[in-house]
Amino acid sequence: MNSILQIDERNLQVTTEPGVITEVLQNAVKEKGLFYPPDPSSRGSCFIGGNIAENSGGPKAVKYGVVKDYVLNLEVVLPTGEIIWTGANVLKNSTGYNLTQLIVGSEGTLGIVTKIVLKLLPFPKYDLLMLVPFNDLEKAGEAVSAIFRAGFTPSALELVEIDALKIVSKMVDSTAVPVTDDIAAHLIIEVDGNHQDTLMAEMEAIGELLTQFDCGEIFFADDAQQKAELWKLRRRVAEAVKLDGYTIEEDTVVPRAELPALIHGVKELGTKYDFKAVCYGHAGDGNLHIRIKKEGSIYSLNNPDVIPALKALFELVKSLGGTISGEHGIGLIQKEYMDIVFTETNLKLMKGIKKIFDPNNILNSGKIFD
Amino acid sequence: MNSILQIDERNLQVTTEPGVITEVLQNAVKEKGLFYPPDPSSRGSCFIGGNIAENSGGPKAVKYGVVKDYVLNLEVVLPTGEIIWTGANVLKNSTGYNLTQLIVGSEGTLGIVTKIVLKLLPFPKYDLLMLVPFNDLEKAGEAVSAIFRAGFTPSALELVEIDALKIVSKMVDSTAVPVTDDIAAHLIIEVDGNHQDTLMAEMEAIGELLTQFDCGEIFFADDAQQKAELWKLRRRVAEAVKLDGYTIEEDTVVPRAELPALIHGVKELGTKYDFKAVCYGHAGDGNLHIRIKKEGSIYSLNNPDVIPALKALFELVKSLGGTISGEHGIGLIQKEYMDIVFTETNLKLMKGIKKIFDPNNILNSGKIFD
Repeated sequence: MNSILQIDERNLQVTTEPGVITEVLQNAVKEKGLFYPPDPSSRGSCFIGGNIAENSGGPKAVKYGVVKDYVLNLEVVLPTGEIIWTGANVLKNSTGYNLTQLIVGSEGTLGIVTKIVLKLLPFPKYDLLMLVPFNDLEKAGEAVSAIFRAGFTPSALELVEIDALKIVSKMVDSTAVPVTDDIAAHLIIEVDGNHQDTLMAEMEAIGELLTQFDCGEIFFADDAQQKAELWKLRRRVAEAVKLDGYTIEEDTVVPRAELPALIHGVKELGTKYDFKAVCYGHAGDGNLHIRIKKEGSIYSLNNPDVIPALKALFELVKSLGGTISGEHGIGLIQKEYMDIVFTETNLKLMKGIKKIFDPNNILNSGKIFD
Repeated sequence: MNSILQIDERNLQVTTEPGVITEVLQNAVKEKGLFYPPDPSSRGSCFIGGNIAENSGGPKAVKYGVVKDYVLNLEVVLPTGEIIWTGANVLKNSTGYNLTQLIVGSEGTLGIVTKIVLKLLPFPKYDLLMLVPFNDLEKAGEAVSAIFRAGFTPSALELVEIDALKIVSKMVDSTAVPVTDDIAAHLIIEVDGNHQDTLMAEMEAIGELLTQFDCGEIFFADDAQQKAELWKLRRRVAEAVKLDGYTIEEDTVVPRAELPALIHGVKELGTKYDFKAVCYGHAGDGNLHIRIKKEGSIYSLNNPDVIPALKALFELVKSLGGTISGEHGIGLIQKEYMDIVFTETNLKLMKGIKKIFDPNNILNSGKIFD
């Protein structure tokens, strides 16, 4: 069984094996007052090793960064049987090529990670959470970019389209969030820090700013229970909309201010290719999860109806300066679309690197590219 | 002539060419209220392109990270003449191998960077600066790690040994910093943020904590001029001690709490190998610059006296969990020592990657490794 090997309180680092559940690791370091921010929605069941393979994110990424920003050093078993440490247990490193960052996000195709040294932060003392309804989806997108331009850095800035919220509210039988017909989307906004007074002032200032974007009445989560219920709703959106028939999930990411254009484009593509889409995700990072369904059709990835629609979506994302995956990775499913965002030369380099690490192509072969 | 191509205020990004001086870029984005944190001491003369080649840091790295944390996307001309963009202009990216992070820190050996997309932050509204004398160098090192363990994240935490300070104070003819015989080292501590009151409280709490480590009387920089003078002193240390005969500069980095052991070890090695050393640098990151001189001898890198001393130093660094270079890179000078921190397998992988990008070995050949 895999375990956490050492919480180094002197250096704010943790050494762990890959098969530790993300939330277990987060809770263990929190007991020491320490913070490991990356928090995918599946954190209660996913493994740290998998998070490294996919360079996972989560709501906190908008302020704290993704997995790659916390990985200091990795022990890796190469397909040749050789074992290396990729770097050193240090916060800065300019010693040779960055093998650590090459392994992070390589989806298990270059080596098997067996030990992991992660950077930790002091756990922030306070957080505040609010929910802001908008009656226009694109206006919600515009508001996101205005928040950062005004100098705020929330610790989470999530967007959930109303259709997704209706579905998840029903599934978890929650009345935590008002769902009325004039609402198009909600933003969930969290700020955190060590000074409660300034956090309160910051939250109010953000609320004030949002009134310029025709937001509705802001709901402040008053206590730990309300916060937990709101986050539970948000974390279960993917599962709920999947069960509702939105079987295809995309993980598009664009520069933050292009979110309204992406959202608008998704709806247009829905009309053109006859699918329904719900949007939700990490709006503060420009990372929009788009789930698709088509009534009366098995809208799965090997359905030839789907491919042109997804191609059009990724071409739109590319034209907005974005790319296919922000935090989920490519795997088997998205590799057909890699040539939309990469040239032959990019892919040739990646395949060359794969061959250096794994000359006999024995590790996760067929993932990311053929 | 190279120039800044676009400051994207909507997305908090800047696109620049590599031959822009770091400080020029910082000032240009600051005019828009934006912040590009990496700030090597040479920022008035070094280029963004060079910073990317070396994955540079600087005092702000302790809170804000190094160059690699700001590079979103790079246009690179490969030695084969092909041109690629390494990624996308996004804050999160799990689409294929991280070619961007492979180029950052590769010291010009893999390709020529021709365009750079950097992430920016809102410029923090306030900063406070203090100077704290210690009469014991190792106690100063212990205090550094206590600051982080107590939950503070300063925006700079620099250490300067008294010998270095004496030399630089003379060179710039400054009386800004008290230099008395009972002082062994100073810490320079900066906090920044958007709320002056909480910053003040934080600075006082840090000062209170430091009294547990036998610090002397704390000097608060009262105004912009005092701050500028203090930073000028700090930034010119390397130049001053070099002119004073400390010709060899090392860029060691260890886990933060190992700083006292590193400092102690450096002094012991000095006795054993008959050299004088001064230590200064980015203590908050565990990144200690060590400058060495030997009276009556040309203590240069090709002097056979030097090699065993540096080998012993790097073996110490490695044994503390650290590595050779935190922010300066390897180049020609340090490559002799790469096998202390890396196995043959690590080096074989790096050389393999080099060959994929540069099959004819025409780019910066002989740098990092042979």
